[in-house]
Amino acid sequence: MSRMPESALPPALPTTLPAWPQLAAAAAQPQRHLRDLLAEPDRAKAMTWSAAGITLDASRQPIDRAIEQALLDLAAQSDLAGQREAMFRGDRINVTEDRPVLHVALRGDASGGPWGSDIQALVQRELDRVCHFADAVCQGTVRGSGGEAFTDVVNIGIGGSDLGPRMAADALAHLASPTLRVHYVSNPDAWALWQVLRGLDARRTLVVVSSKTFTTQETLTNAASARHWLADQGVPADAITQHLVAITASPAKSAELGYAPERTFLFWDWVGGRYSLWSSLGLPLALGIGADAFKQLLAGGRAMDAHFCNAPLASNLPVRLALHGIWQRNFLRRPTQLIVSYASRLVRFVPFVQQMDMESNGKHTHIDGTPTTVDTGPIVWGGLGIDGQHAYFQLIHQGTHRVPVDFIGVQSEDTPLPMAATHHHVVNLNLRAQAQAMALGRTPEETEALLLKDGADATTAQAMAQARSFPGDIPSHILWLDRLDPERLGALIALYEHKVFSQAAIWRINAFDQWGVELGKTMAKAMEAGG
Amino acid sequence: MSRMPESALPPALPTTLPAWPQLAAAAAQPQRHLRDLLAEPDRAKAMTWSAAGITLDASRQPIDRAIEQALLDLAAQSDLAGQREAMFRGDRINVTEDRPVLHVALRGDASGGPWGSDIQALVQRELDRVCHFADAVCQGTVRGSGGEAFTDVVNIGIGGSDLGPRMAADALAHLASPTLRVHYVSNPDAWALWQVLRGLDARRTLVVVSSKTFTTQETLTNAASARHWLADQGVPADAITQHLVAITASPAKSAELGYAPERTFLFWDWVGGRYSLWSSLGLPLALGIGADAFKQLLAGGRAMDAHFCNAPLASNLPVRLALHGIWQRNFLRRPTQLIVSYASRLVRFVPFVQQMDMESNGKHTHIDGTPTTVDTGPIVWGGLGIDGQHAYFQLIHQGTHRVPVDFIGVQSEDTPLPMAATHHHVVNLNLRAQAQAMALGRTPEETEALLLKDGADATTAQAMAQARSFPGDIPSHILWLDRLDPERLGALIALYEHKVFSQAAIWRINAFDQWGVELGKTMAKAMEAGG
Repeated sequence: MSRMPESALPPALPTTLPAWPQLAAAAAQPQRHLRDLLAEPDRAKAMTWSAAGITLDASRQPIDRAIEQALLDLAAQSDLAGQREAMFRGDRINVTEDRPVLHVALRGDASGGPWGSDIQALVQRELDRVCHFADAVCQGTVRGSGGEAFTDVVNIGIGGSDLGPRMAADALAHLASPTLRVHYVSNPDAWALWQVLRGLDARRTLVVVSSKTFTTQETLTNAASARHWLADQGVPADAITQHLVAITASPAKSAELGYAPERTFLFWDWVGGRYSLWSSLGLPLALGIGADAFKQLLAGGRAMDAHFCNAPLASNLPVRLALHGIWQRNFLRRPTQLIVSYASRLVRFVPFVQQMDMESNGKHTHIDGTPTTVDTGPIVWGGLGIDGQHAYFQLIHQGTHRVPVDFIGVQSEDTPLPMAATHHHVVNLNLRAQAQAMALGRTPEETEALLLKDGADATTAQAMAQARSFPGDIPSHILWLDRLDPERLGALIALYEHKVFSQAAIWRINAFDQWGVELGKTMAKAMEAGG
Repeated sequence: MSRMPESALPPALPTTLPAWPQLAAAAAQPQRHLRDLLAEPDRAKAMTWSAAGITLDASRQPIDRAIEQALLDLAAQSDLAGQREAMFRGDRINVTEDRPVLHVALRGDASGGPWGSDIQALVQRELDRVCHFADAVCQGTVRGSGGEAFTDVVNIGIGGSDLGPRMAADALAHLASPTLRVHYVSNPDAWALWQVLRGLDARRTLVVVSSKTFTTQETLTNAASARHWLADQGVPADAITQHLVAITASPAKSAELGYAPERTFLFWDWVGGRYSLWSSLGLPLALGIGADAFKQLLAGGRAMDAHFCNAPLASNLPVRLALHGIWQRNFLRRPTQLIVSYASRLVRFVPFVQQMDMESNGKHTHIDGTPTTVDTGPIVWGGLGIDGQHAYFQLIHQGTHRVPVDFIGVQSEDTPLPMAATHHHVVNLNLRAQAQAMALGRTPEETEALLLKDGADATTAQAMAQARSFPGDIPSHILWLDRLDPERLGALIALYEHKVFSQAAIWRINAFDQWGVELGKTMAKAMEAGG
C-alpha cells in the first residue's frame, strides 16, 4: 500500500490559468476554415519545425497567431518546463505510487544525466547484460540444452511487455536476422500460443517471459503452457532453464518459478510497462535486430529528449503536438485522435501509441486526487493510412465527426524491389493529397460545377451536389521521418511519449499510474472465487 | 455519370417520427446507473436472444422498458421492414449510384430468393467456377507454367478486396491448408509486397489481383510489381497468365491488362466492395480453407439473413444492435463504438467492421440529398479484448469518455494444446469480469473501505479513494458464438452488415455509396498533374 506523498508540484489546475478562459473565448468565436488559414503566405514555412530526423508540418492546424500565443502561454503558465525538469531529475512525480519516472534514464548515455550516477550505473550494467546476451544468442555461443544454436525466440508478455518490442521489430524488419526469428505471443487464447509453437523445434527455441510483476495471469498461463510444451518436446526437466529467460522488475517472483538468475534481466519500479521498451524489455528486439541497432534506437530517443529539454516551447515538437491536441480536445471538443502511418512497417505503431497515450492520460482525477475539471486523454485510433483511405476515411471526409489526424510519412525508400521508387511515389503522393483534401474540402457549389463539367444534366448535378461535397476543415499534422531506421524510430517514440507527458502536465493528471486496470482483475478474482 | 433516380422509399426523416422526440425527452432525464438496472430480477434472461449460433446478451444496455419500447417504435415508424424487403427484392436502393444492393443474393441457396432467377443463375455460375478453381489449385490439377503445383497464393487488393477474405482467413486459420499458403498484400508501400515475395518461389506462386474497378492505383502498382517479379524470376512471358488470376466487376479492364478470361472471376456493380467477401472475392479464402468451408460461411450468412427477415423486431439481433447503437449515438451522444474480441483468431474482425460500418454510414446527406439532420455512423475501433485490458482499457474505466462496447466471445475451445482448457477459462473469465466491472464500477466510498481493509491508513485511504474509484455505467453487448467455425463467422458478419443497414434505414442515409473516397483520389491526380 503506497502512501500519498506531499507533492512539491505546483497545484494550479488548468482552468485557473489565465490562458484557459482566453482559449475558451477564442473557441466560442466562429472558427476560420483551414482553406482560409492555408491561404496565408508562408504559413507552411512558419509552422514547420524539425528535430532528430523528424519534421513536423503543423500548417493544417486550425489555429491563428492569437490562438497559438495563448496555447504557448498555457504551457508556460502550467510550468511545463519545471515539471519536465522534475521528471528528468527523478522526483517522485508518480504520486499515487510514490515513485520517480525515469524511462528517460534508460536511454541516457554513459556520461550520466540529472538522475544521478547510481541510476546510471544500474541502467548501464543491465544494458550491457542484455546486449552481451543478445550477441551471444545471435552468434550461437549461448545454445539450447542439446547443444544446438537457437533459431527461434518466443516472447511471452502482454501490454507493455509486448507492444513496444513487437512494434519496433516490425518497424525495423528490414534489419531482422535471417537466422533467428522472434515471435510474440500476448493473448492467452490457446490459439495464439499454439499457432506459434506448432511450427517450432523445441531444442532450438528460447522462451522469453516478460512481465514487470511476474503475477500477470495471462502471461503466466502462456508461460506455463510453453514450458509444458518444451518438456513434451523432449527438453529434459533439469535443462529446461537453458531455454528460458525472464525479464522483470520482480526477480524474486521469477526465481520462485524457477527462472535462473543469470537468465533474468531486470528493470525497475520507476519504469512504467508502457515506457519499458528502452529497458531490458528491449531484449526480444535486440535478439531480432542485433544489440547495435537496439543501441541506435536508444540514441534516437536521447536525441528527442535533448530537443524536448532544450528547444523553445514554440518550436518544440512534443510541446506543439500536445498544445494542438489540447486545443482540439478541450476547446474544439473533438474526442478522438486518428494516427495513420504511410510506411507499412509502422503497422503496429498505433496500438503502441494507443496504450502509451490512453493508459497514461485516460484519467478522471487531478494529481491532487480531486475529480478532473477538464476532459483528459483522447481516444487514439488508426493504422496504415492507405488502407484507411479504402475503408474508414469515408467517414473522416463525409461523416458527422471532426477528427484530428496525425499523418506519418517517410521521405526515403530503400526496399530492394525493382519498382520501389514507383511504389514510394504513390504512397507519398497519397499522403499529401489526403492531408490537403481533408483541409480544403469541396463545397456543394464547386461540386455542382464539376459535375456539370463532367457532363451531368443540370437536375442531377444540383441533386448530387450536396451528397458529393466535402466540408473539409479537417485538421492534421504531417510528421516526416527522413528515413525509417532505429534512430528515427527512437525519436518518434520519444516524441509521442513527451507529447503525452506535456498534456498530462497541463491537465495536472498523473500519467504514470494505471488504477483502471485494477478493477477488472479484482472482479475476475472475485468471479473465480465465487465459481 | 449516374442519374439521380426518383426514389420509391418513404421520405420520413428520423426527427419527424413520433418516437424521436420521445427518445430525446427520455435522454434529457437523469439516467439510471447500470448497477440499478442490473438489479432488476430476470433482466439477463429478458434481454438475451439467440440466432444462427450466436447469443446476444444486451442486459448491460442502459435502457429501461419505456426506452426499449420507444426504440422499437422508432424502427417500426422508420418502415425498417419495408426497407429490408426493398433490399432483398433488388430495388435500386443505392440511389446515388442508381443500383440495387444484392450482396445478400450471393449467399442465397439454389432455390432462389426474392431477387429472382436471373441473379440467382449469375451467382451460382460464378460460385461454381470459384469452387472448381479453388479445388483444382488445392488438388494440384491447376499448376504453374513449369508444371509444378502451387504452394503459395498472393492476393493483391485493398479495402474491400482485402479486409474480408483476410479477416476470414485469420478467423478460420484452424482450417488452413498446410500445403497452400495464402498471403495478402494491400498496401502499396514497397516493403509490404517485398516482405511476401522475397520468401516465395515464383514457379509455385499464383498471384490473384482483386479489384472491383481494376483502376485502383495502389492495387495496379502492386500487381505490376508482382508481374515484374514473376518475369525476373524466370516465368516465361508467354506463360505468365498461368500465374495470374483477376477478380473484378470490370472484366474488360482486366482483359486489357492481359488477364485471361478463363482465369477471371466476376462480381457485379450491385456488390459493394465492403460486402464482397461473399462473391468471387472469396476465392483467396476458398483457396486457403477449401471450397466446402467457404460454402459453409455462405450458409452462416444465409442463416442470419433468415433471422433478420423473419424474427420480430424485439428479438431480432441486428435490429437490437442497431437500436441500442442509435440510443447511444444520437441520444446519449456517444460518438464511438468499441468492439473487442476475446477469440484471438478474430484479430482482424475490427478493421473489417470498421470499413463496413464507417464507409457505409459515415455520411452527411440523407437519401434525398439534403444535409443530415442527425448524427450518423459512429467511429468504430478496438481489437483483441485481453490485449486491450493491458492497454487502452484504462481510459474506458477511468477516462472522461463513455464508450459503448461490444464484447465478442466463443463458448467452446478446440485448439490442440494440452493446457487449452486453462487458457479458455482465463479468456472467458476476463470477458465476463470486464463487462461486469464496466457496468458496476466502484464508488469512492467503496474504494475507501477496501483500502482501509487492505491496511491503508485513514488519510491515505481518503486521499486515494477518488483516484482508485471507477464510475462504471459503461454499456456493453456480449455476443457469444457457440463455436468459431465458418457458419458462425458467416452469421457474425451478416449480423453486423444488417445492423449497419438498419441504422442507415432509420437515419435515412444511403449506406451503399462512398463518395468520400473520391476527393483524395481527385486531389492525388491533380497533384500528379501539377508535378
